[in-house]
Amino acid sequence: MTSTPVRRALRPSGRLLPEDTRRHHRALLLQLLFRYGPASRADLARSSGLTKVSVSDVVGDLLAEGLLTEAVATAQGRVGKPPVLVSLAEGSRQVVAVDLSADGLVSGALLNLSGDVQERRGRPLEGRRGETAQDLVHDLVRELVGLATQPVLGIGVGTPGVVDAAGVVVDAPNLGWHGTGLAEALRHEFGLPVFVANDANTAVLGEHTFGDAGDGGLMLIRVGTGVGAGLVLEGALLHGHRSAAGEVGHVVVDPDGAACACGRRGCLETVLAAPHLRERLDAEGPAGLTAVGVQVGVVLAPVVGTLNLHELVLSGPLELLDGPLLEAVDRTIRERAMPVSGEELVVRTSALGEDVVLVGAAVLVLAGQLGVS
Amino acid sequence: MTSTPVRRALRPSGRLLPEDTRRHHRALLLQLLFRYGPASRADLARSSGLTKVSVSDVVGDLLAEGLLTEAVATAQGRVGKPPVLVSLAEGSRQVVAVDLSADGLVSGALLNLSGDVQERRGRPLEGRRGETAQDLVHDLVRELVGLATQPVLGIGVGTPGVVDAAGVVVDAPNLGWHGTGLAEALRHEFGLPVFVANDANTAVLGEHTFGDAGDGGLMLIRVGTGVGAGLVLEGALLHGHRSAAGEVGHVVVDPDGAACACGRRGCLETVLAAPHLRERLDAEGPAGLTAVGVQVGVVLAPVVGTLNLHELVLSGPLELLDGPLLEAVDRTIRERAMPVSGEELVVRTSALGEDVVLVGAAVLVLAGQLGVS
Ligand SMILES: [Zn+2]
Ligand SMILES: [Zn+2]
Repeated sequence: MTSTPVRRALRPSGRLLPEDTRRHHRALLLQLLFRYGPASRADLARSSGLTKVSVSDVVGDLLAEGLLTEAVATAQGRVGKPPVLVSLAEGSRQVVAVDLSADGLVSGALLNLSGDVQERRGRPLEGRRGETAQDLVHDLVRELVGLATQPVLGIGVGTPGVVDAAGVVVDAPNLGWHGTGLAEALRHEFGLPVFVANDANTAVLGEHTFGDAGDGGLMLIRVGTGVGAGLVLEGALLHGHRSAAGEVGHVVVDPDGAACACGRRGCLETVLAAPHLRERLDAEGPAGLTAVGVQVGVVLAPVVGTLNLHELVLSGPLELLDGPLLEAVDRTIRERAMPVSGEELVVRTSALGEDVVLVGAAVLVLAGQLGVS
Repeated sequence: MTSTPVRRALRPSGRLLPEDTRRHHRALLLQLLFRYGPASRADLARSSGLTKVSVSDVVGDLLAEGLLTEAVATAQGRVGKPPVLVSLAEGSRQVVAVDLSADGLVSGALLNLSGDVQERRGRPLEGRRGETAQDLVHDLVRELVGLATQPVLGIGVGTPGVVDAAGVVVDAPNLGWHGTGLAEALRHEFGLPVFVANDANTAVLGEHTFGDAGDGGLMLIRVGTGVGAGLVLEGALLHGHRSAAGEVGHVVVDPDGAACACGRRGCLETVLAAPHLRERLDAEGPAGLTAVGVQVGVVLAPVVGTLNLHELVLSGPLELLDGPLLEAVDRTIRERAMPVSGEELVVRTSALGEDVVLVGAAVLVLAGQLGVS
């Protein structure tokens, strides 16, 4: 065979700028405006590396859709025409968010594009499981969709259990869901884009995007009736080999410890779940929480050292987590991991409080529909 | 301000298919051929989602550069013309790889694009540190560049210590390097692209690309005079917040353990480094290695559970690692992490043996220069 290159003229049609390139440009500009606020078209071209022509074209589309607004900047001692700034129209769309992680309660909210909660609704589960629990979620979503005053961008759900990439809840024992196609059912009923994820994964996305998180690796541990974790590493949610990343709640911390719901003894959940923390506090006072914090620090030091995390966030009842427990976790990790691992490490509670899953469910939709996070 | 979209005609010039789009197409096609072997242009278009015109254009360039070859497939009972297949020309370039992780030895090799070692050379360090150690690395690279029979694609180096994104060795005490601009110095002397990374990160890239690794999360632990780890998660090397991911060697496993070089007591390195393993084996026989394996499993169970790893690979002296130690690590992790974390977990030794850092150093160059890995 000859190795002479087969050169042909590039086809002079619009297909050379394929649809996915346009989508990429669109997401890139939305992300810049989402992260850094209002900017001129020239600023956007500089920051994105796109040509001014491409920027104007995409910005034109987004203005027409109402996703962006434009305004003349207030000139301050500048020579020449004040620049026209475009910005994300945070009130132009609404997102329906559902949090299934609370004990016995289905909570939902309508949020704007800045992650602000605008309406809240909830339903007591009252022991419902399986299909009747699913019906309750549909009722709540129907009410929230009815309350919307702007086009609904999509529905986001944070649920306990392992969730696969198609939004099937593989296994959520508390809700009696096994292989439950939650995303597909909601999509079918409401005709809207639906995004479902594990509650701890949802929470870490909320914290990453709207919770004052830094740029480095972030691990969020949800403490409720159970214990789960979610991780954002190098800017992206970690899924894991079998979509089971973050399953640190059933790692054994004490082989001689209390019996766990999973059938083994001394899982992290047996010491860190909220009911156990309350018992320890009642029986031993703050020293009980310190003892728990040391155990948690011992289990997490290898994780912090291996991942060189920037932030470790505890999310749950602040009266239990903030104080002696958090301090003991922080101190123990620093004692047990290398100085370089602890140097810039921040150990703190969530800035979003109990809204972290709702806000995260909105981020699922923002990321899926607009490419921003 | 009006919100009417500002629509302009797209500029009908080649700049609408920017240079980085061409580079992206090029890397995409090289990656497909690298991963899946010979393919026709039509196959490449289908697999890449690019138009046939774009594929032919990029393939033409690559044939002209000699990076690809083409050949007529042997027809087997097929109707019509046998297809022309293009494939990566594995012998068309060579890579210089250097491994600084062995005790007292600088080893180097020339490899082809398939990661096969074609020439090996080495130099005893004989106590050299700082600049004289750097001179020795330059001597070795000069010899290897001189041995090359094909154009050299670049130089890859795996070195102990923390290495930043610019290839500066921030801190490698054994070599007396602190803020040493190894990549820049080699680039300046040889006029070739240079890629430098921590030895454990280099090793995990070698294992990921050429070591029979699966698609899931991979953690490789290098056991030598020290202990370090590298991770490939969701297909990409994990760097960590301060470029210090994988620093699990100085996580404390036993606060009452032996004094460690880092000034604390009972770090993982004090039980798992090769000299300590030899002492345990001599003093206690295989039971000593089992005891170490249990300690290692206790430290790694939270990491495996948190990351939902697919593979955990030990790399180092096989006579110490393979057998009782590996079995105890495997068993302890399964006892201490959730069943879902252990279900598809593979705990094994490296398929590449002691070449893993050299092969990984070649992967640094392949990834950096061709976009394949
Ligand atoms: Zn358990
Ligand atoms: Zn140490």
